[in-house]
Amino acid sequence: MKSAITTAASRLHELHCAACGQVHSAFELQTVSACCQQPLLASYDLSWPPRPEGIIDQADSSMWRYGALLPLLDPANKVTLGEGLTPLLDLPRLGAHYGFSALTLKDEGQNPTGSFKARGLSMAISKAKELGASGCIIPTAGNAGVAMAAYCARAGLRATVVMPRHTPEAFKEECYWYGAQVELVDGLINDCAARVRQLNAGGELLDISTLKEPYRLEGKKTMGYEIAEQLNWQLPDVLLYPAGGGTGLIGIWKAFAEMKALGWLAPETRLPRMVAVQAENCRPLYDTYFGHQSNCHAYQGRPTLANGLAVPRPLGEPLMLRVLRESQGTVVSVSEEAMLEGMRELGQHEGLFVAPEGAAVWMAARQLQAQGWLRADERLLLLNTGSAQKYLSNVVGRAWG
Amino acid sequence: MKSAITTAASRLHELHCAACGQVHSAFELQTVSACCQQPLLASYDLSWPPRPEGIIDQADSSMWRYGALLPLLDPANKVTLGEGLTPLLDLPRLGAHYGFSALTLKDEGQNPTGSFKARGLSMAISKAKELGASGCIIPTAGNAGVAMAAYCARAGLRATVVMPRHTPEAFKEECYWYGAQVELVDGLINDCAARVRQLNAGGELLDISTLKEPYRLEGKKTMGYEIAEQLNWQLPDVLLYPAGGGTGLIGIWKAFAEMKALGWLAPETRLPRMVAVQAENCRPLYDTYFGHQSNCHAYQGRPTLANGLAVPRPLGEPLMLRVLRESQGTVVSVSEEAMLEGMRELGQHEGLFVAPEGAAVWMAARQLQAQGWLRADERLLLLNTGSAQKYLSNVVGRAWG
Ligand SMILES: Cc1ncc(COP(=O)(O)O)c(C=O)c1O
Ligand SMILES: Cc1ncc(COP(=O)(O)O)c(C=O)c1O
Ligand SMILES: [Zn+2]
Ligand SMILES: [Zn+2]
Repeated sequence: MKSAITTAASRLHELHCAACGQVHSAFELQTVSACCQQPLLASYDLSWPPRPEGIIDQADSSMWRYGALLPLLDPANKVTLGEGLTPLLDLPRLGAHYGFSALTLKDEGQNPTGSFKARGLSMAISKAKELGASGCIIPTAGNAGVAMAAYCARAGLRATVVMPRHTPEAFKEECYWYGAQVELVDGLINDCAARVRQLNAGGELLDISTLKEPYRLEGKKTMGYEIAEQLNWQLPDVLLYPAGGGTGLIGIWKAFAEMKALGWLAPETRLPRMVAVQAENCRPLYDTYFGHQSNCHAYQGRPTLANGLAVPRPLGEPLMLRVLRESQGTVVSVSEEAMLEGMRELGQHEGLFVAPEGAAVWMAARQLQAQGWLRADERLLLLNTGSAQKYLSNVVGRAWG
Repeated sequence: MKSAITTAASRLHELHCAACGQVHSAFELQTVSACCQQPLLASYDLSWPPRPEGIIDQADSSMWRYGALLPLLDPANKVTLGEGLTPLLDLPRLGAHYGFSALTLKDEGQNPTGSFKARGLSMAISKAKELGASGCIIPTAGNAGVAMAAYCARAGLRATVVMPRHTPEAFKEECYWYGAQVELVDGLINDCAARVRQLNAGGELLDISTLKEPYRLEGKKTMGYEIAEQLNWQLPDVLLYPAGGGTGLIGIWKAFAEMKALGWLAPETRLPRMVAVQAENCRPLYDTYFGHQSNCHAYQGRPTLANGLAVPRPLGEPLMLRVLRESQGTVVSVSEEAMLEGMRELGQHEGLFVAPEGAAVWMAARQLQAQGWLRADERLLLLNTGSAQKYLSNVVGRAWG
């Protein structure tokens, strides 16, 4: 079976500035757009859209089954650990208890390195290799740095990971096992970004910061393709996602748009309302969305158990706001105590040991239900972005509240 | 695509005593055989063997794609977290460095709960549900207990996990998050088994000990089916596996035998030589295989970093010896220091953070190469049975030797 199928060539076409639309080459190393210093978005030739059967490599049970819609030109440069095609799991027990008739969770904790960050970094490091980088550097809240360290080791590239000093030890330790250099910074991810600029003033390393190179987003978007394929091209009514830097939210929405252009979704398909979930301790998007500030440029965040959500000033804020507007979504913020409660519920009733980010998503669904924003018969999809393993030192002893 | 395929009904036929062959019912709750107190092995109706295309549910990217060859009768009883269909990864950098021309690793660390134990426990707990158990109990070196706790939570069954007191905290803590009761015992897994008999003297709980119920083995055998399917029905020359209780080794070999009976392997196919990898600190099978003892009944083991290998007196010893004999395999034992070296090599050169058990397997390949037991052009398959996450407290600070 396998032998009959070969991955179709990438249909990568060009890059566009997210702010002004200007075209930039997809065939050179790029960071942010030269015109506006904003994210670059990849576009593909979707002009002759065959059915999914002609595009998706069914024999590949990783995100690379969508290779034709990904930006890697030469498969020889693929740096993979088998990321993607994570399971969609029904949550029948929690659903029945809380009166959700169709409650589903996509478990990204089963990815290599224990989080959905594996998708973005597999993609970005593959492109880094293709474009001839010799090493990479990243400011991170934790999971992205671990993933970068792993994929750089796999590719034979040098790796420098800059993370907050307060990050649980397990994140740092795993980076060491991958042979990465780890720099600790007092502060949050924006302070790490400043340290990256210092450390890499000479530009020897490729900067893999969220949305400062165009390809992590492309890896993340595969979640959107998988959700559609796994639901047999019927999308859920509401999709809840823990938004920090925003690549997941933006990437999934981009995938839906591409699938519409490809004609893979029935014309009458309503796209899901997209819910961005944040932590009370760091909720820049929430404050902007609800008009408490005009944008996140001066937002001050605090650390949270959900360290992936501790992103006070995301470059992708305008793109996230667009997703919320276009999808008629909303933003929810969740307390630290509620995250622990969510972890307990998912653990004890569904056998899932989820990261605080994933627990926040579940608690956000409960909040929206209480507010009447969700109807009982709506099909909900929760994204659990990571496993709780590396967060253990921060939650130890809290299993019984 | 998905909608066109439904999982074919189970072809489960009967159970046989592994010692005397006597037939036992596959349609009642069973533990060991009533005749000989030995493991029971499930058999299937393979008399009308269609091609894999007619049996394997291609739309299912979990081990349940082989449902027709698994013992669950009613799919409504399936207790799943998406286990199985883990990636086969080439190890090009380590292969080139050490002169292995075809070196591949199956990464079971990407399973739910971080180890291959998810397969056996998904299967066993599904059957426990089907057969009406109200709760389960298990003696464990760690990973199996965590997996049982997760699947019991998912099924709504009570769970009691009995593990050695010295097991790293992460194993215990994860059980708590699943709501399981955890009992700690001074000693190794055989001491835990004794405690299980005490705790469950009244027999209220189903005993899920390795090979004391027939279905964990059936879950584990799916690794064998996957290896064959992922390699397009061409098996490797040598398969290296970390053997504790032995269900993995025995299960994979059982799958190969079933595939031969089904006609899925070309008649001239040579089955792989099976290598059982043990820890120097606990190597009962090694000592028996090399004639240092007549069997493991009085073997005294010591704790090891690879806690899954700390099984001093495996009930499945005779079955493991048969696999080694039939496959012309061997046994290798690996030191604690070597396991750490293996973890470093797989981390730094291939981006894999593997359990000490998986690292032992890699170091065993190096030993067998040094001894001339392996030829440079042989196709090697290493089984990494788990992720290193839960072992972290035992290896912290050792990333640089
Ligand atoms: C577990 C987890 N969830 C969610 C996020 C947020 O990521 P993004 O908004 O960039 O998709 C992160 C980022 O670090 C994370 O590690
Ligand atoms: C990571 C790991 N590898 C290997 C083993 C050995 O298992 P078995 O010989 O039963 O297949 C175990 C058992 O606890 C384990 O946890
Ligand atoms: Zn611009
Ligand atoms: Zn018998």
